[in-house]
Amino acid sequence: METLSGKKVSMNTKEMESSDVVEPRDEECVEDRMDYLIKIVTQFHDHLKERASHYLGYPANQDCNDYVALSSLLKFHINNVGDPLKESVNGVHSKRFEIGVLDWFARLWNIEKDAYWGYVTNGGTEGNLHGLLLGRELLPTGILYSSKESHYSIPKIARMYRMDFETIASLESGEMDCIDLKSKLIINKDRPAIINVNIGTTFKGAVDNLDLVLQTLEDCGFSHDQFYIHCDAAIYGIIAPLLDQGHTYTFKKPIGSVSISGHKFLGSPIPCGIQMTRKSYRHVLSNNIEYIHTIDNTISGSRDGHAPIFLWYGLNMKGCKGLQKDVENCIKNARYLRDRLKHAGISTMLNEMSIIVVFERPLDHEIVHKWQLQCLGNMAHIVVMPHVAREILDNFLDDLLPKRNTWYQDGKVLPHCLAEDIGISNCACSIHGK
Amino acid sequence: METLSGKKVSMNTKEMESSDVVEPRDEECVEDRMDYLIKIVTQFHDHLKERASHYLGYPANQDCNDYVALSSLLKFHINNVGDPLKESVNGVHSKRFEIGVLDWFARLWNIEKDAYWGYVTNGGTEGNLHGLLLGRELLPTGILYSSKESHYSIPKIARMYRMDFETIASLESGEMDCIDLKSKLIINKDRPAIINVNIGTTFKGAVDNLDLVLQTLEDCGFSHDQFYIHCDAAIYGIIAPLLDQGHTYTFKKPIGSVSISGHKFLGSPIPCGIQMTRKSYRHVLSNNIEYIHTIDNTISGSRDGHAPIFLWYGLNMKGCKGLQKDVENCIKNARYLRDRLKHAGISTMLNEMSIIVVFERPLDHEIVHKWQLQCLGNMAHIVVMPHVAREILDNFLDDLLPKRNTWYQDGKVLPHCLAEDIGISNCACSIHGK
Repeated sequence: METLSGKKVSMNTKEMESSDVVEPRDEECVEDRMDYLIKIVTQFHDHLKERASHYLGYPANQDCNDYVALSSLLKFHINNVGDPLKESVNGVHSKRFEIGVLDWFARLWNIEKDAYWGYVTNGGTEGNLHGLLLGRELLPTGILYSSKESHYSIPKIARMYRMDFETIASLESGEMDCIDLKSKLIINKDRPAIINVNIGTTFKGAVDNLDLVLQTLEDCGFSHDQFYIHCDAAIYGIIAPLLDQGHTYTFKKPIGSVSISGHKFLGSPIPCGIQMTRKSYRHVLSNNIEYIHTIDNTISGSRDGHAPIFLWYGLNMKGCKGLQKDVENCIKNARYLRDRLKHAGISTMLNEMSIIVVFERPLDHEIVHKWQLQCLGNMAHIVVMPHVAREILDNFLDDLLPKRNTWYQDGKVLPHCLAEDIGISNCACSIHGK
Repeated sequence: METLSGKKVSMNTKEMESSDVVEPRDEECVEDRMDYLIKIVTQFHDHLKERASHYLGYPANQDCNDYVALSSLLKFHINNVGDPLKESVNGVHSKRFEIGVLDWFARLWNIEKDAYWGYVTNGGTEGNLHGLLLGRELLPTGILYSSKESHYSIPKIARMYRMDFETIASLESGEMDCIDLKSKLIINKDRPAIINVNIGTTFKGAVDNLDLVLQTLEDCGFSHDQFYIHCDAAIYGIIAPLLDQGHTYTFKKPIGSVSISGHKFLGSPIPCGIQMTRKSYRHVLSNNIEYIHTIDNTISGSRDGHAPIFLWYGLNMKGCKGLQKDVENCIKNARYLRDRLKHAGISTMLNEMSIIVVFERPLDHEIVHKWQLQCLGNMAHIVVMPHVAREILDNFLDDLLPKRNTWYQDGKVLPHCLAEDIGISNCACSIHGK
């Protein structure tokens, strides 16, 4: 085995750069190496701290300080492989915390403890992968319908699963246009419908009207066994049920599954999510895998056991009341931002009860980059997450407003018209702005 | 918004149990709640410590102590969404560490820095999802071939992707039977072949003979544009190239992609992996998603930014030499375990250069549970990972051997014959054992 050390592929020819993997020198002791690496990590920590304090455009809660209290668990590779509701011979898992979290979400979405099945995913996309697969396996000839404002994972999944896909138009608000849905359902009346309903679209934070979708299906003559509804509730899966008190977003209605992100509104260092469905659908994807001593009906197999503990900790620290307070604060701050932008003569839109403020795309890439704004066409948006305090919004406005004056001061360049994107009433361009 | 607090779904009706999410009491202060939760986490930490010290049956390295040094980064939600090789407006990412890790694996698998594309996944399954999707999109009418000893994700993915799937027989060692492969390729000569090659099967740690697979394809008249090879190297993706010095497992051969687990041999608190392919295939799954300002050609979208830092840290601490030492130690310890089991008259198999010892399934479930042994039919296995020191193996044997004597002492029950599972020469049953 001595020859191993003569391996041709040299690992130390390149000069050391902070992000490279560089072979330790023969004389280098472990402590020196560790010190050197920790120095790089500390620099990186400071860089992240700066970036996180200007994090406005992405739907993730950067208020994660508390989770450092859980760091002793990093000593273990915690793996929740397989079904969370089945015990496994693998003992280094956190399934009891996972179940605690799932039970909480089951209560939030009004489904009985013994009527749901679910698991903690790697994020919203895995939930979509799972929910749409359930739909396709239950209705193999079904067509997938989803609005054009859906998350990009939806058309991606249609392609992965070789499903026929119909894009539905959306309204100015960003929600699904049910008139267009109706026309497409009627054309395809001979085939089942698998509908992705957005509870919070990625760019405008619009919520598809679930009741109207159900009514449209009924109007078109689709019985319950001819459709499957998956809710992509990545962003608003916690917010919407808290706001409407479980009247609209609930398993009491004929939905099949819901996918909710854990790192978005609640917050988690690691991307994660909750996928929840009906226990009666549990068998659909089950494969009895003897050698892992569990039934694997998940997408990913090996699953992070730390994420459920982060979620458990976050939910226990805040509780429903704490989260409701966060929702109220975020909505208030979003309205504050909208009002300040409107007041400055900037095209702005904020949907009812939404935390995503859409506005005119800044001309200066420096501002986009500094504040990490997501842009689409002539729009930009800010997601007012719990870490986005009013002070941060003020700093942003203090940065944006004076600079914006310089872009348009000589009148040679005019602000873009956003009437088609966010509606005439929200557009402040030279034509529509009064 | 006052009505929010009147939400019907009560969160505090159940009595407090450690893993439940329980609404904080009105008078409860944050510090009290935190103390209470940390008490539960500390108990859980001690439970994990005990379970991790008896962790023999699963292919994960529990030697994760060093990673606690990175815990300050838990303050941030680090998200590497999209292509790691493209800069993003999102600044709270760790893509430079991810690239450092990918470059290292590119050197290990002999592919030039400017010729590869890859990303850090949530684990081996996501890599398989990605690699097989590449294969299917490049060869849409292709049939997927994989041995019956493949990881359960392979047939699962065939179903997800609506691909025709041919299971290939395997040899006693667990490796793909290329005679059976040949017969199935000839029958389906009119359709392209997508072949999943196992570099370390899950149960026996067998390595499919890549050269023989390539030879078989050539013998059957498949030109390079008529096949795609994905390597599922979850377990041995680091071990095999280190052992054979890059002669066999290399992108110099016509393979399309390789998926390697990060938490298995190297070790990481969080499941993760490396998916690597050729840059020329990068476009195949690309969707230009303007609003995340990046090209997303990954499966999962949002991606954990902590995992690449764990991998970067682990690789930098060990380097190639440290990993080679780990490989040597694990192989030595696996041989030690095999020899001790054989000496005790127990049916045992260990493939050449493997770290997975297959042996007679213990009759006592207590032992299976205590040592977390994976079982399949009448076989059990132990994966001799870097955390499995010889002392742990001795403790296991001290536990197993006296108990085993009691199971078979009266001669009424005889050890199962394992000749069909692991070969006559490895079987120690009353017929084959001398």
